[in-house]
Amino acid sequence: MLQPFDDTYFMKKALQEAETAFEKGEIPVGAVIVIDNRIIARGHNLTEMLNDVTAHAEMQAITAAANFLGGKYLQNCTLYVTLEPCQMCAGALYWSQISKIVYGARDPERGCIHLNTKLHPKTIIEGGILAEEASDLLKRFFIQRRNLN
Amino acid sequence: MLQPFDDTYFMKKALQEAETAFEKGEIPVGAVIVIDNRIIARGHNLTEMLNDVTAHAEMQAITAAANFLGGKYLQNCTLYVTLEPCQMCAGALYWSQISKIVYGARDPERGCIHLNTKLHPKTIIEGGILAEEASDLLKRFFIQRRNLN
Repeated sequence: MLQPFDDTYFMKKALQEAETAFEKGEIPVGAVIVIDNRIIARGHNLTEMLNDVTAHAEMQAITAAANFLGGKYLQNCTLYVTLEPCQMCAGALYWSQISKIVYGARDPERGCIHLNTKLHPKTIIEGGILAEEASDLLKRFFIQRRNLN
Repeated sequence: MLQPFDDTYFMKKALQEAETAFEKGEIPVGAVIVIDNRIIARGHNLTEMLNDVTAHAEMQAITAAANFLGGKYLQNCTLYVTLEPCQMCAGALYWSQISKIVYGARDPERGCIHLNTKLHPKTIIEGGILAEEASDLLKRFFIQRRNLN
């Protein structure tokens, strides 16, 4: 049976956010938060534009989702993010008690898995959805930035 | 020699922020960020009021300090915070490359030391300044909250 709302569908939406970040000259990472197959929050990295290290895609999506829901806990929500969350974002996700995290590409150096950041016991984490697309976009960004400097 | 601007002086300012949080019904944690003996940012926990798990005292102080400095890195800055930072805040401090973190009370369960959150190699962390005052304020808050429910 055709499943229009699967992990790939929502990760494509997160990738669109990452592309928006790319166009703004930001490290291209994007995120969406979904509840009952409905996107309730979107975010993309804005650390350069906002001059703020806390302005990661996930942080903005967490704040927007809580705002939408009218409560700060994201139970029954799934975060789709193109890059494995860092310690800060995983720490925020811990507090949010989110049900599921689905990431695209691994971040072997600064990602929460390698750094062993504690997630909430209620949270499931899975990765590898459209990992190549997410990773290619990041590579393209860093090559372009190197060539501009 | 009298040193008016020592760790105790700035931690008292962070404690004032924590007291403001207490008065608003927030878990009482406060923070200030200092550069050259000058407070450039203040923050207190606002997770309830803002309905946002990311609204910790440190996160707000980091954003405010970057805004004041016009750049997102907090080199040469010291954060004073009444409670040991959590993973999220320590993760944000990692990205900020802050020079020094001084906390009051330990958070043995959810603090970054026990959870082994990676700090930036340029960052020094010290604790125990006015720890009892910070801890007493938290205890008072939780006793009051228990009695109200």
